[in-house]
Amino acid sequence: MNIKVIAFDADDTLFINEPYFEEAEKKFCVLLQDYLSHHGVSQELFRTQINNLPLYGYGIKGYILSMIEAAIVVSNGTISVDFIKKITEFGKELIEKPIELLDGVEETLQALHGKYKLVVATKGDLKDQHRKLHKSGLGHYFHHIEVMSDKEEIDYQKLVKRLDIQSSEFLMIGNSLKSDVLPVLGIGGHAIHIPFHTTWEHEKIDFKIEHENFKDYKKITDVLTLFQ
Amino acid sequence: MNIKVIAFDADDTLFINEPYFEEAEKKFCVLLQDYLSHHGVSQELFRTQINNLPLYGYGIKGYILSMIEAAIVVSNGTISVDFIKKITEFGKELIEKPIELLDGVEETLQALHGKYKLVVATKGDLKDQHRKLHKSGLGHYFHHIEVMSDKEEIDYQKLVKRLDIQSSEFLMIGNSLKSDVLPVLGIGGHAIHIPFHTTWEHEKIDFKIEHENFKDYKKITDVLTLFQ
Repeated sequence: MNIKVIAFDADDTLFINEPYFEEAEKKFCVLLQDYLSHHGVSQELFRTQINNLPLYGYGIKGYILSMIEAAIVVSNGTISVDFIKKITEFGKELIEKPIELLDGVEETLQALHGKYKLVVATKGDLKDQHRKLHKSGLGHYFHHIEVMSDKEEIDYQKLVKRLDIQSSEFLMIGNSLKSDVLPVLGIGGHAIHIPFHTTWEHEKIDFKIEHENFKDYKKITDVLTLFQ
Repeated sequence: MNIKVIAFDADDTLFINEPYFEEAEKKFCVLLQDYLSHHGVSQELFRTQINNLPLYGYGIKGYILSMIEAAIVVSNGTISVDFIKKITEFGKELIEKPIELLDGVEETLQALHGKYKLVVATKGDLKDQHRKLHKSGLGHYFHHIEVMSDKEEIDYQKLVKRLDIQSSEFLMIGNSLKSDVLPVLGIGGHAIHIPFHTTWEHEKIDFKIEHENFKDYKKITDVLTLFQ
């Protein structure tokens, strides 16, 4: 294994993300509970998000626009404007959430920094991701941040080309088997999965991965055993 | 002048953008004309946009969220949900607008392609900008697209560092004196201004620029005279 660049996913790999979205979704369900069950509201929101993904991409702003759209559908157009205002405030709260580093992240970055080129490879909203990395205080460990519009094989191919390395010299570390592992193995790179306790429905896969370029670790500091 | 990388702004430099936003704003003003004059609505929208810029950044999704917020303020919370729905549709229409190339763009890129590394350096929403470049059919002329969270000196410094060149080897071409010219000259780069007939209020400056690294041309094909 001759790794030149190690890329880290950001959300739920470096710092907490999905629980904040789940919290916002719960508040959304409570807001609309006179119209539909929490489960029903969640389903409509998920359906709207997936429909809008080609238009809006990932990130908080698209999420809030989908919430507004779903709220209008669920309430059959009878929701009050006060509620719409509340939804836009959910979005601003999400944007302003504090950054909570995950255990072992700083220790891992400290150990690898200077030995490998470290980058952040994250999808989502450009502004959100730059803000979060800045607030995390981790920025100085990384050569730069790559905000990707998606994490398919083609996106990783472009990334590797831009980094001017071979796929086999690329290692991706992240919490999503679907986005951080499968496409990277698909282009001949290396991937490490560090599970997070909760995963967004859209990121779930239902099979097991075995591959010589793949490791499934329990915690991020386990990565260091590879480089001793 | 020893230029290695030529960066092109995208919106209103390669293809039409601002007129689409102005069109959306007009529809927004008509929607709210029972509450306030067109001028008053425009002012409230601008105020809301600028307030939200640190949170939302540039791009269509933040624009639409600001429209919704401004509509609630202008109507004192009495706007109908139907109108909110219409506003979200303005956003989707904006996203799906066709790409209209500006005169001389393709000719200019064709002439420079292969002789210089060409990149797109644009601010705005990642997803929007990738989609627009793809739809424009111009993607193959460019080494890659740099979506910047802002266009201040610090952002250009990072860009030049990432491109692994000196500032003096960098040429930026764009329609905004404030975003495409001043910060580039500020870091020792070269800049060419190609005016577009309309400029967003936020991008306007009220003084004249004279600088040895600066050229103000009438049309984009004039750039080629520099490289003959």
